[in-house]
Amino acid sequence: MRSLRVVQWGLGAMGGMMARLVTEKEGLNLVGAVASRKEKVGHDVGKVIGLGRETGIQVKDDILDVIEESKPDVVLHARNSFLSEASPEIRQCIMHNVNVISIAEELAFPWATSMEEARELDGMARSHGVTVFGTGINPGFVLDLLIVTLTGVSARVDKIEAKRINDLSPYGPTVMRSQGVGSTPEEFYQGIKDGSIVGHVGFIQSIHMIARALNWSLDEVVENREPIISNVLRKTEFAEVKPGMVAGCRHIASGKVKSEIRIVLEHPQQICPDLENVETGDYIKITGVPDINLQIVPEIPGGIGTAAIAVNMIPFVCEAKPGLLSALDFPIPRSLKCIGD
Amino acid sequence: MRSLRVVQWGLGAMGGMMARLVTEKEGLNLVGAVASRKEKVGHDVGKVIGLGRETGIQVKDDILDVIEESKPDVVLHARNSFLSEASPEIRQCIMHNVNVISIAEELAFPWATSMEEARELDGMARSHGVTVFGTGINPGFVLDLLIVTLTGVSARVDKIEAKRINDLSPYGPTVMRSQGVGSTPEEFYQGIKDGSIVGHVGFIQSIHMIARALNWSLDEVVENREPIISNVLRKTEFAEVKPGMVAGCRHIASGKVKSEIRIVLEHPQQICPDLENVETGDYIKITGVPDINLQIVPEIPGGIGTAAIAVNMIPFVCEAKPGLLSALDFPIPRSLKCIGD
Repeated sequence: MRSLRVVQWGLGAMGGMMARLVTEKEGLNLVGAVASRKEKVGHDVGKVIGLGRETGIQVKDDILDVIEESKPDVVLHARNSFLSEASPEIRQCIMHNVNVISIAEELAFPWATSMEEARELDGMARSHGVTVFGTGINPGFVLDLLIVTLTGVSARVDKIEAKRINDLSPYGPTVMRSQGVGSTPEEFYQGIKDGSIVGHVGFIQSIHMIARALNWSLDEVVENREPIISNVLRKTEFAEVKPGMVAGCRHIASGKVKSEIRIVLEHPQQICPDLENVETGDYIKITGVPDINLQIVPEIPGGIGTAAIAVNMIPFVCEAKPGLLSALDFPIPRSLKCIGD
Repeated sequence: MRSLRVVQWGLGAMGGMMARLVTEKEGLNLVGAVASRKEKVGHDVGKVIGLGRETGIQVKDDILDVIEESKPDVVLHARNSFLSEASPEIRQCIMHNVNVISIAEELAFPWATSMEEARELDGMARSHGVTVFGTGINPGFVLDLLIVTLTGVSARVDKIEAKRINDLSPYGPTVMRSQGVGSTPEEFYQGIKDGSIVGHVGFIQSIHMIARALNWSLDEVVENREPIISNVLRKTEFAEVKPGMVAGCRHIASGKVKSEIRIVLEHPQQICPDLENVETGDYIKITGVPDINLQIVPEIPGGIGTAAIAVNMIPFVCEAKPGLLSALDFPIPRSLKCIGD
C-alpha cells in the first residue's frame, strides 16, 4: 500500500506534536507544513518541530501553495477551536480536493451548534469527493466516543454522568486566562460575562454526539461555569492563586431529553488539584441495565491524546465515503503502528 | 424505517435474554424463535422467555422452517461456543440468505483458530449477500474492542495487560464443572488434561483481534490455566469449596510479537472472590505513550452485556457489506433505544 501524503497546517504546540507523530508512523508521509508565525516559515520542518533531523520540507505560510506543490491526501488542521474560524480554512482544502482532519473542537460534532454550516460543509465535501472529520481527546473521545462505546453493552441507558478532572499546571498564560486562573471570584464572573473566560469548548458537541448515537431527542443543553475557589496557596510557573482566589473553572453541561436531565458532563479545570486532594482522572457512570462505572486514573493526557487520535484516524478518513463525518461514522479507532515497531 | 425482522435461534439463558431484549427495542421485530428442548417447542415464545404476555409466535424446533415462514433479516444464534459446532448452523442461515449474529465465542475472531473455515464462511456470505458477525462481552468487548478503542488515543503502544475478574457464584453446575470449581488441585490438572475443565473460551480470539488492529504480527499465543486454591470455605447454591480445594480457574494468555510478550490477558473465574478480598472488575493497562489505566468496577456483567451487544449490533449488521466481519469492521457500538424511552 502506498504511503498517505500528509500536510500539517498549524505548527503550534498541538500541530508540532501531530507533525512529529506523522513522521513516526508506518504508512504516513509528511509532505508539507504550514505555519503562520514568521519565525517558523522558511525553515526545515524537522527543525521547527524538534525532530532532531532535517526532512527536506520547508515550512511555508500559504496552504494553497503547499497543497498545489505536495498533492496531499489529507491536511491535518490545528489552528483554532471555533467553526467560525475553522470553516473558511477547511473550505479552502475541500475546494482543492483534499481530505481534512481538524482538532477544532466545534468540528467534532458541528451539527450541534451550526446545522446550516455543517450541511454546507457536507455538501461541499461530497461534491469534491473528500472527507472532513473533527476529532480530539475531548470533544472527540473521553466524554463522547468512549461513553457511546460503553453503551454498546447496555440493554437500557437511563442516565449518563461523566467527569474529566485534569490539571492545568503545565499550561501557559493563554490557558490560565481562558480558565480564570488567578482571578478573584468577581473577576471570574465578569470574565464569563464578557467572554474572556470560556471554560471548556466541546460540551455541546459531546452531548449532541451522545444523543445522536442513542437516538435521544435533546430538548436543550444547559451549561454552567463556576469558579473553583482555592483554600490553599497554589503556584505554577505562570500563575499564583492565594486562598480565596480562583484556581480554575468548574464547567458543567447537562442535556435534557423530554424535560429530564439524562446527560451530565463535568470538566473542572484547575491548577494543582492535588493540593486539595483532588485526584485527576476520567470518570464515566452509566445508570441503566447494567450500571457501568468506569475510571481512568490519571486522566488520558489531553495534548498527546488529541495529536494521536487525529493522526491515527488518517487511513480511515482517506478511505471513508465523502462528506462531513463524525466519530459515530467510523470504525473503532486504533493506534497506527510506529516505524520499526 | 421499517422494523428489522429477527429470529432467535437458541432459547437458553442467553438466548432468552436476547429475545426479550429484541422485544424491548425500537425498530426490531421478533418474528420467530427456535429451541431444541422439547418442553419449549410449541409454546408461545412470550411464555417461554418470561415476557409476561403472548406474542403470537410459537417456538419451533426447525430453523429452516422458521426462516422460510418468517423471512427474517437476521438470525441471532446462541447455541454453542466453538466453531466446529456453530459453523454448520451458521452456514444453514447463510444458504438461506439471512444475516447472522452469533455469540459463539470462537466466531468473535474466527481467523484466530480456523483461517480456512473463516475464509469459507466469508466467501459463502459474500456470494449470498449476507453478513456474519460474532460478538459478546468477552470475547467481543472488554478484552478486545475496548482495548483497541483506547489505543485510538495512543501515540505508541508498547504493551497491553488486561484482566477481567468476575464472580461465578450465580452460575449453575455446568459452569462450575467447566471451571473446576469444587475439585481438588489434582482433579483440576486432570480436568485440564482431558479437556473437561476449559477455563475461558476467547483469549485466542481477543489477542488476534488486538494484534490485527495494531498491525502486530503475532508469533504465538500461549495459554496457561492454574487452579485458584481457596484459603477459606466458599459456598454457593451449586458448589462448596473447602480450604485447599479449587474455587475456580486462573486462566492467562499471552501474545508474543517478535519474541516479546506484548499482550497479556487474564481472566480468573471463581466463586465468592469477595471472601478473600478480591474485587471483581475489568482492568486495562496500556503501557506506551501515554500510559492508560482503566478500571470498571464491578465488572460489566457478562450475561446481559453479551445479550445487549448482540442485539444492539443488529442494525449495523443488516446494513453492512456482505462477508464475515469482526468488531474491527463496524462503527463504534451503541445502545439501541428502548420502546417508550
